[in-house]
Amino acid sequence: MTIELAEAKNVAFQMADAARAAILPHFRKARLEIENKDTDGFDPVTIADRAAETAMRRVLADLRPDDGILGEEGGTSIGTSGLTWILDPIDGTRGFMSGTPTWGVLIALSDENGPIFGVIDQPFIGERFWGGMGENGQSGPMGEGALGVRKSSLRDAVIFTTFPEVGLPTEARGFQDVAKECKLTRYGMDCYAYALLAAGQIDLVVEASLQPYDIAAPIAVIQAAGGMVTNWQGGPAHDGGRVIAAGCAEVHAAALEILKDIPND
Amino acid sequence: MTIELAEAKNVAFQMADAARAAILPHFRKARLEIENKDTDGFDPVTIADRAAETAMRRVLADLRPDDGILGEEGGTSIGTSGLTWILDPIDGTRGFMSGTPTWGVLIALSDENGPIFGVIDQPFIGERFWGGMGENGQSGPMGEGALGVRKSSLRDAVIFTTFPEVGLPTEARGFQDVAKECKLTRYGMDCYAYALLAAGQIDLVVEASLQPYDIAAPIAVIQAAGGMVTNWQGGPAHDGGRVIAAGCAEVHAAALEILKDIPND
Repeated sequence: MTIELAEAKNVAFQMADAARAAILPHFRKARLEIENKDTDGFDPVTIADRAAETAMRRVLADLRPDDGILGEEGGTSIGTSGLTWILDPIDGTRGFMSGTPTWGVLIALSDENGPIFGVIDQPFIGERFWGGMGENGQSGPMGEGALGVRKSSLRDAVIFTTFPEVGLPTEARGFQDVAKECKLTRYGMDCYAYALLAAGQIDLVVEASLQPYDIAAPIAVIQAAGGMVTNWQGGPAHDGGRVIAAGCAEVHAAALEILKDIPND
Repeated sequence: MTIELAEAKNVAFQMADAARAAILPHFRKARLEIENKDTDGFDPVTIADRAAETAMRRVLADLRPDDGILGEEGGTSIGTSGLTWILDPIDGTRGFMSGTPTWGVLIALSDENGPIFGVIDQPFIGERFWGGMGENGQSGPMGEGALGVRKSSLRDAVIFTTFPEVGLPTEARGFQDVAKECKLTRYGMDCYAYALLAAGQIDLVVEASLQPYDIAAPIAVIQAAGGMVTNWQGGPAHDGGRVIAAGCAEVHAAALEILKDIPND
């Protein structure tokens, strides 16, 4: 690791601030131009998405020119420092397009082993969740404070996923098999669900079909808050795909037991 | 009608302010005491819920002692003015318990024909949507402005409901029959979805099993923004039950055509 916490946090916060400024002028604007980069599905890319990534890359060019970058919009640039910034300028574009306050800016710093620092930022609310390298925190309308997961059991758990479809039909059934053991199931929160888990408000997030840039920042923030994030086999989740994020080992193990044998079709 | 817009708005805003102050100290607090008022289902009532309704009733006792009150928590008190305030101190208690910013305070003023003024307030974000008696507006993190629905077709519509289960199995199937004709389906927004509709961000909300206090304020706000709210037969929705809220007549008619014959079981 060739970076100190203070510098990682400063750079990440400057990026988050730049992304806020780039995105908010486009949020809830009627004439938001939406392009479609995946003609097979519904994957909108907004001008705001690109403007935010450009703004964040500008911060990195200025402050950390030797680090690599993996961005949702602008692709990968190789660095020489051994560190890579993983950027999702608007996670939850469908939420963004619907005007909900559940999308977020995801910023993670990763070394060769995975994410070491991350930020989940919600520009409209003005809320920020961060963690890694021995620190965690949150700031928003009710002030600033620490993060911290809560302990629970699967039976008492509040579980989230963004869409009931989750991913493949087998993955949706796997999710429902977990959810029916939980106390409460909720949908529609995009990356905000990971922030709520790190803040000790919910117990479990199960998703599938994630990209690396969807989960890198949540991994750092949740681990820094005392939680766990793995794939559905219990291995590292930073390559994306199927993810279990839990506030405690008991809930994680119970979800893993149900999900570990779900076939890939 | 025995009240002017300025007074209705002033009283409603004072109630919303009082509810914010009563609720926020309890939001996202670990030791929130939750009681269960319906032993057959999951219907939590929080201390915050009751404190907010008490605070709102105090405003009415002071400013509008002759009006009736229908509150979720405190029941009905008959007035002598011909006007009734309909209060849901925390609409979306499950969202509240999960820490999401999607619950809201609902305040409506009704005469013998239905809601004439309403407020949807989101205390955590600091966002307020109001409308009726010739006025509409919103205020929040991005400033203050007018409300206004958008025109769309069912094929281009963004549709919301809070839970995929909607209500009875037949009601869930009815919702899905509408949703499969829409461009995008989202869940989990509680009363915030009605505010997004009034603000022209989404096109359609379909719900069932609502109480009168769940829908009175949304009716006033959405109608004031140019939209329509009816039951699934096209009649008045202010008694609750099954509701269609739409931004324009075309979307409303298309949803109604699918939902009007759904049986009651």
